[in-house]
Amino acid sequence: MNKDFSFKVKKINNKARLGQITCAHGNIDTPAFMPVGTCGTVKAMKFSDVANSGAQIILGNTYHLMLRPGADLINEMGGLHQYINWNKPILTDSGGFQVMSLSKIRKINDEGVEFSSHIDGVKYFVTPEESIRIQHKLGSDITMIFDECVSYPASYDDAKKAMLRSILWAKRSKEAFVKRSGYAIFGIMQGSTFKDLRQESTKKLINIGFDGYAIGGLAVGEGQDKMFETLDYSCDLLPNNKPRYLMGVGKPSDIIGAVARGVDMFDCVMPTRSGRNGQAFTKEGALNIRNAKYKSDSRPLDQDCSCYACKNHSRAYIHHLIKSNEILGAMLLSEHNIFYYQKLMKEIRLAILEDRFEDFYQKNHI
Amino acid sequence: MNKDFSFKVKKINNKARLGQITCAHGNIDTPAFMPVGTCGTVKAMKFSDVANSGAQIILGNTYHLMLRPGADLINEMGGLHQYINWNKPILTDSGGFQVMSLSKIRKINDEGVEFSSHIDGVKYFVTPEESIRIQHKLGSDITMIFDECVSYPASYDDAKKAMLRSILWAKRSKEAFVKRSGYAIFGIMQGSTFKDLRQESTKKLINIGFDGYAIGGLAVGEGQDKMFETLDYSCDLLPNNKPRYLMGVGKPSDIIGAVARGVDMFDCVMPTRSGRNGQAFTKEGALNIRNAKYKSDSRPLDQDCSCYACKNHSRAYIHHLIKSNEILGAMLLSEHNIFYYQKLMKEIRLAILEDRFEDFYQKNHI
Repeated sequence: MNKDFSFKVKKINNKARLGQITCAHGNIDTPAFMPVGTCGTVKAMKFSDVANSGAQIILGNTYHLMLRPGADLINEMGGLHQYINWNKPILTDSGGFQVMSLSKIRKINDEGVEFSSHIDGVKYFVTPEESIRIQHKLGSDITMIFDECVSYPASYDDAKKAMLRSILWAKRSKEAFVKRSGYAIFGIMQGSTFKDLRQESTKKLINIGFDGYAIGGLAVGEGQDKMFETLDYSCDLLPNNKPRYLMGVGKPSDIIGAVARGVDMFDCVMPTRSGRNGQAFTKEGALNIRNAKYKSDSRPLDQDCSCYACKNHSRAYIHHLIKSNEILGAMLLSEHNIFYYQKLMKEIRLAILEDRFEDFYQKNHI
Repeated sequence: MNKDFSFKVKKINNKARLGQITCAHGNIDTPAFMPVGTCGTVKAMKFSDVANSGAQIILGNTYHLMLRPGADLINEMGGLHQYINWNKPILTDSGGFQVMSLSKIRKINDEGVEFSSHIDGVKYFVTPEESIRIQHKLGSDITMIFDECVSYPASYDDAKKAMLRSILWAKRSKEAFVKRSGYAIFGIMQGSTFKDLRQESTKKLINIGFDGYAIGGLAVGEGQDKMFETLDYSCDLLPNNKPRYLMGVGKPSDIIGAVARGVDMFDCVMPTRSGRNGQAFTKEGALNIRNAKYKSDSRPLDQDCSCYACKNHSRAYIHHLIKSNEILGAMLLSEHNIFYYQKLMKEIRLAILEDRFEDFYQKNHI
């Protein structure tokens, strides 16, 4: 519970990296996928099952948690780990992305963002300092800087303005961050899909100096090709001895392609959200369990899967549950999908360890 | 998997009975509480957790299952046990009560009931024979006769008419039932709160002869006093060597009072439904977790409980989950409540075994 934060690259296959992060609440084998616990819960799952899936870290959303139940309450309850009873590492985003995408923004300037809660309309003013303070109260192992993420497509001027503001906020975020052994703060590069802006953003972040670097502003509609193109030059600029985190990504093929380009960490609501909507991930692609053809299909979701849903239930039964809007349907598909993602990460790590990631990539990247 | 259906009374304290039912899929210690799996799922729970709670039998709803996914499909999938993967006993109701309470009834006469599905308006005609055929297709260990249940209050004439029709249907149900070793059919007494109708119903059912007897038409708004009064004279009329099942009951105090009057089996949606609505059962009474006073309450729902929710989470966290409409809130409260009910049944059985049920009743019946 009081280890220094560290990152070690254990093996490299071309650009793909096998590594391990150590932080206050434990180790994280990378490449790692972080299930998203938006409101303090990985939706429709018990934390014991999240841990059983192999997840070693989850992501918490600062924006949602500051609105409800509030950072002070969580702090009073002993921090987010204790409040939700998840004793492994937690990374919290800074709230920047959700403030932009979910709330009703009143005012945004270099000082910060004034917005109204999407839940009850209550007005908030968040600055970089306030975001870092909230994340401190939550007690997250990995704090993210407060940034401004433009939507896609963005004009060059808008992207540049947001990137420069994010650099300003990155500095203030770092200054506001209270150093504690085992706890880290990551910078976030911006610049939309403009190469020179990404380069400028990255260089400036490195000059400030962070424990890890996130690639923000992707997976916002630019498509996989443009995302990979951006990663190609972005990752090359990043220091080799720090973890790289691609925020909000993504589909299995996005993850495999990003690992091939040197990314170490991922988070995405996709496995749980699409689970609640009736989608199951399998080696043969996504399976929409609502489809009538599964009505009497006695096979498990995925023959190769050893999750609770696949060991116990048929596609036919889960089809029925989802069609009937039964909670158990959401539970089973969420658990299956989180297991699927963690299994994918294990396979990726093993492939790098055994010097065959290039081959794995060729077989699995589409 | 092929035992004869049997019921053995092991011990009696005044009128309270400790017993055991044996049926095709296993044994059931009585007094027993059956969690309700309306649409083939005990809502918001994995079946592994239902079993862990100590439940030895669940109830399936013929009405819901015949509409969706349909009895033929379930039969094709190997029966309800296999379809939902619950390998312990299942009792199915006959659909009578739900047809009356949920569907849009088009026509009811001595032949049967014509109604429209509450899901999609599709028209069905259910007779006693059809109800029994459906329950056969589901493969339930305990089949219930098709009956007509009047609402409360009912006029004497309406209650009598429905009771006599239910007797007619009871005969036809029994004739339609295919005898198989380990499988049983239960009669259901009706007669609202009219003593002479209850007596007539009971005598006529006994004349037909069933493997067990249910007390229907209660817990429909008559209140606990009238329910207990009805049980007082109804149970006395029933044979001692057959299980007695009080349908749709109830609150913990209802169950304790009914056991004291000689009832052996219960079912109710209360633990799961009230769980989804934020209510937790505890020794100190029901706790409404939405209440603001639980916002920062770090205690478990119930100090004495060893369920997953109580071992892992605080009232504060569950308060947050329920206020945020998070599925995990429904999961944790449902599991806690089902555990609470099963623990209550274990305590009741132990009290009878140890010849101290009278004392238990005095301490716990309110």
